[in-house]
Amino acid sequence: MDYEKYIFIGIGLIGGSFAIDIKKHYPDTVLHGISRKDETLNKALELKLIDKKATLDDLENADLVIVSIPVDATVKLLPTILDKIGDNTLVVDAGSTKEAICKSVEHHKRRRNFLACHPIAGTEKSGPTAAISGLYKGKTNIICEVEKTTFKLQEKALDLFRAIGMRIRYMDAVSHDKHIAYVSHLSHISAFMLGKTVINKEKNERDIFDMAGSGFESTVRLAKSSPAMWTPIFKQNKENVIETLEEYINNLQHFKELMQQDNFSEIFNEMENTNYIKQILNGIK
Amino acid sequence: MDYEKYIFIGIGLIGGSFAIDIKKHYPDTVLHGISRKDETLNKALELKLIDKKATLDDLENADLVIVSIPVDATVKLLPTILDKIGDNTLVVDAGSTKEAICKSVEHHKRRRNFLACHPIAGTEKSGPTAAISGLYKGKTNIICEVEKTTFKLQEKALDLFRAIGMRIRYMDAVSHDKHIAYVSHLSHISAFMLGKTVINKEKNERDIFDMAGSGFESTVRLAKSSPAMWTPIFKQNKENVIETLEEYINNLQHFKELMQQDNFSEIFNEMENTNYIKQILNGIK
Repeated sequence: MDYEKYIFIGIGLIGGSFAIDIKKHYPDTVLHGISRKDETLNKALELKLIDKKATLDDLENADLVIVSIPVDATVKLLPTILDKIGDNTLVVDAGSTKEAICKSVEHHKRRRNFLACHPIAGTEKSGPTAAISGLYKGKTNIICEVEKTTFKLQEKALDLFRAIGMRIRYMDAVSHDKHIAYVSHLSHISAFMLGKTVINKEKNERDIFDMAGSGFESTVRLAKSSPAMWTPIFKQNKENVIETLEEYINNLQHFKELMQQDNFSEIFNEMENTNYIKQILNGIK
Repeated sequence: MDYEKYIFIGIGLIGGSFAIDIKKHYPDTVLHGISRKDETLNKALELKLIDKKATLDDLENADLVIVSIPVDATVKLLPTILDKIGDNTLVVDAGSTKEAICKSVEHHKRRRNFLACHPIAGTEKSGPTAAISGLYKGKTNIICEVEKTTFKLQEKALDLFRAIGMRIRYMDAVSHDKHIAYVSHLSHISAFMLGKTVINKEKNERDIFDMAGSGFESTVRLAKSSPAMWTPIFKQNKENVIETLEEYINNLQHFKELMQQDNFSEIFNEMENTNYIKQILNGIK
């Protein structure tokens, strides 16, 4: 069998972790990398995430192109990528928003070569050194507008995702962006603003932080995330994110008012009702 | 050497985890348990967290009493505990608030037998089955008003805390309650209200939760915590907690306004500045 040519556009946590697992399950593929920064490519080569550097001109005879760059860059670059690929090239993305990305190529003559994906996997780290084996095992991959992709290329993508252990879920792009605002984007803002609140308050008393335990650490963890990745996500999902933020602020405001009114029996109820999250989280595992 | 008699008032996650490590480091002690619920005591016996059941009348000849019950119960019960102990009994607590607890016994004739402690350790679980070995290893124990405790009993407590691997930090009770509101109490409200927001929104679409990943799980984890434990903490630390909540809400509100104004460069800055939490969290480990 001829080797297959896979090209990663963006080879950080998401692309690099795909590369590790793909190499394991498809050892005959040759993995190429494209990145804005030569430093990133050199690091990816050094870590053996990719076998070779490439440029956009190499897309023409690629079998698979995996795009995992910030979502604003995806929206800008995706039409060019589709311009340059061959007839049988499959392009998948991994962006945390789907509507703007799908819209950017809705009328492209090669729309059927593109599969819009959102693998629900990651850590708060970024860059090629953050790439790990098994990141996607048991995780959900949300595929949007599947009917717009050539069936043969859908199959190719599904084989790959199943090989690395992913569960597949289909959804329309609008619903994806609405729900993901609640279960992912809001968590990031909640963590960032918690971090900000504590840093601002405690900036002159740094050693106060040894009062912080694993609970604080867990709640604030996402505040380590990359601003370069998250700013365009919030921008593209602005309306949904603002809606979640308003509801979150209202709930916090209500909690504060209950405290001011010394209505601690209702505060007890609020927490007890929310303990239901235990069952939900058990479902995630 | 004669065996020493240790009595746990409350034998859940906190007391039970102390019991496991104490038994390991001081195998000659005999561990007794007191609990409101006989079911809890039976479970603690079954799990071998304690050797025997006890009642408050057994306190008189106890060497050490460890109080780890909800902070409202501690405030109520602590004067009675000091009434009943012997001259050389050491009493320590583990409450997440310190001012009200210290105040409850400030004029007690046995105040010098009490050491006010807050071990910064725990999980979102509760009850005797949640007790684990090594919970306190490498964790900080905040001791308040140390000067009010007899020196010999301070030494006894420090020997114990060091044996199970704790770092000791001294602080006045007012400062403790102010700072802990930021680094612990606020995280819990932030997580509870995040859980509430998502549950309310998604209650009719439960299968949406397989869109949630490890990021959401981490941020919302504390929303599994026990309302019976946390309601009295918020009540006792009301003023400080309201202050932290106001600052948190203001920061979220500001973030929302930046989004409404399409000021994404400032949103980038907000997140980049908060990335400083990385260094802080490295310091916690």
